[in-house]
Amino acid sequence: MADPKQEKYDLAIIGAGPAGLAASVYASRYRLSNLVIGPELGGYVSTTHLVEDYLGYKSVTGLALANDFVKHAEQFGAEILTEKVSKITGGPAGTAQAGSNFELTTWAEKTVKARALLLATGTNHNKLGVPGEDKFEGRGVSYCVTCDAAFFKDKRVVIVGGGDSAMKGALHLSEFASQVYLVHRRADFRAEPIWVERVEALDHVTFVLENSLEEVLGEQLVSGVKLANGFEGSTELAVDGVFIEIGSTPGRELSEMVGAEMDDGNFVKVNALQRTTAENVWAAGDNTTASAMYRQIGTAAAEGAIASGDIYEYLNDSRRIWKLDEKVTGLVTD
Amino acid sequence: MADPKQEKYDLAIIGAGPAGLAASVYASRYRLSNLVIGPELGGYVSTTHLVEDYLGYKSVTGLALANDFVKHAEQFGAEILTEKVSKITGGPAGTAQAGSNFELTTWAEKTVKARALLLATGTNHNKLGVPGEDKFEGRGVSYCVTCDAAFFKDKRVVIVGGGDSAMKGALHLSEFASQVYLVHRRADFRAEPIWVERVEALDHVTFVLENSLEEVLGEQLVSGVKLANGFEGSTELAVDGVFIEIGSTPGRELSEMVGAEMDDGNFVKVNALQRTTAENVWAAGDNTTASAMYRQIGTAAAEGAIASGDIYEYLNDSRRIWKLDEKVTGLVTD
Repeated sequence: MADPKQEKYDLAIIGAGPAGLAASVYASRYRLSNLVIGPELGGYVSTTHLVEDYLGYKSVTGLALANDFVKHAEQFGAEILTEKVSKITGGPAGTAQAGSNFELTTWAEKTVKARALLLATGTNHNKLGVPGEDKFEGRGVSYCVTCDAAFFKDKRVVIVGGGDSAMKGALHLSEFASQVYLVHRRADFRAEPIWVERVEALDHVTFVLENSLEEVLGEQLVSGVKLANGFEGSTELAVDGVFIEIGSTPGRELSEMVGAEMDDGNFVKVNALQRTTAENVWAAGDNTTASAMYRQIGTAAAEGAIASGDIYEYLNDSRRIWKLDEKVTGLVTD
Repeated sequence: MADPKQEKYDLAIIGAGPAGLAASVYASRYRLSNLVIGPELGGYVSTTHLVEDYLGYKSVTGLALANDFVKHAEQFGAEILTEKVSKITGGPAGTAQAGSNFELTTWAEKTVKARALLLATGTNHNKLGVPGEDKFEGRGVSYCVTCDAAFFKDKRVVIVGGGDSAMKGALHLSEFASQVYLVHRRADFRAEPIWVERVEALDHVTFVLENSLEEVLGEQLVSGVKLANGFEGSTELAVDGVFIEIGSTPGRELSEMVGAEMDDGNFVKVNALQRTTAENVWAAGDNTTASAMYRQIGTAAAEGAIASGDIYEYLNDSRRIWKLDEKVTGLVTD
């Protein structure tokens, strides 16, 4: 990894997904020096099979869209480190002195200072928590269809979940696997109907509804799964791959380090300006309570833009037109 | 104008800008029948010179971006009428019966019914309110640089304003006009610094600061303007064109017809799910109090998406995971 080009930035953006990259575009346009630090260029977008709901792009691979996002940010001068932040010290939360700098340390032990912080760290995939899941991760168990689908050409796979990610995953897996089982706890789906319809239309995708995975079976590699309820006369299903798409949850560590309040699900509480309860700390994207937690690429990007707009005004102590209520859940607009 | 293809839709979207078109993309993906009614395809985006802050598009003309938005919505089945709505009756606001249909009438006297409404009508350009402004509109006075800049090749023009629109306008005008005067009330700008820098770099654009227009002068066409304070020894400036870019305000009529509460500036009050105070009526985009009124293309699109997500759940009476506070300014997230 390259070193940061400056010792100190106006803004450190943690996370290189749509929220972080949009924030960088806006920050650069506001002439705020900014550093984006994230382990994955484009965030989860880059591992998404197809995106068809980001306005302007009718249908695009996640990788191509992520690439456009990164190029856009770089166009206006974004400096991006593909790294993870391990520690945050200083800042108003860590010292008695308001307005002092944050100091960030990365896993590669680089350090950098910043006047303001944006937490745009997204979420991590949820695990089922069943026997065999951890043991076979990377040996048949996967949390990333886009990354791993091609390894299962002409094989049988199971995918667990009922949301958009599970449906898109089943669709993508169907391009490789000879048979896809979609296991879902309920009889109806949280996913957009358009995805459900597309999956239903495929002969070699079978819905296994009102059922769940109890165990991942195998010796060296996955050989099957055990189901809670019988399916076609058996509670065992012979498969080579297990894909788990049951939602995601933000990490707690960085939010705790800066003292930003979270809800019960680890989502950082933000107000309509993306401010957290910690001074000089903003948050945007899937790791926050913003946009009614609708969590789309477009909402994350919008949140990043709003955050940078407010950070610019805050750092310049300019027009402060908003009165915020104390609960940081609402915004008083008049 | 074509007739609507159906007598009744799940959702009528009033406005064909980024908010309305994003709402249509999501509504179509949720399999809600939806009709977009708006006088201008792409809304204000289509009359914008350059867009460089919609994530993914490094630099694009407003017209090209608007075209991508329209194509995206049409891809998923959007029906778009380039028309204006003149009257809305029925619906929970107009009758005692909750859940009854709205009936919309357009200027061309077409009528159509809808179960839910989305107000995505954006804003209208503010006027200066000085003598000569109305008289010379279309004869030298313009509120749309993109539309009219080319008429002023090798001429002298004045543009009034200090925000992004004024800066982008000055930039675009400078490609045609021999001399551009930018008149602004204050000494500093609300515009993004990147725009100010670009304008400052141009020899034939002159800032006339802490000054204002008092009158538009001329006989048949504009011949000059009268300034409040002297500039280069005179309070008159000889110009052929006057461009006014001093912000914009939503119209009140449709919001009043459905009984949706507005703030003092005519902006429709919405909560985090884009719901208005009127039952079965949502609002998204520049005409609302959403996104801390940051009013970007990306925020409008995100708001449209959020609205459709909620409309889908509302019409299907499915999972209602949100508790809303009564002031519709906040959202209780836990």
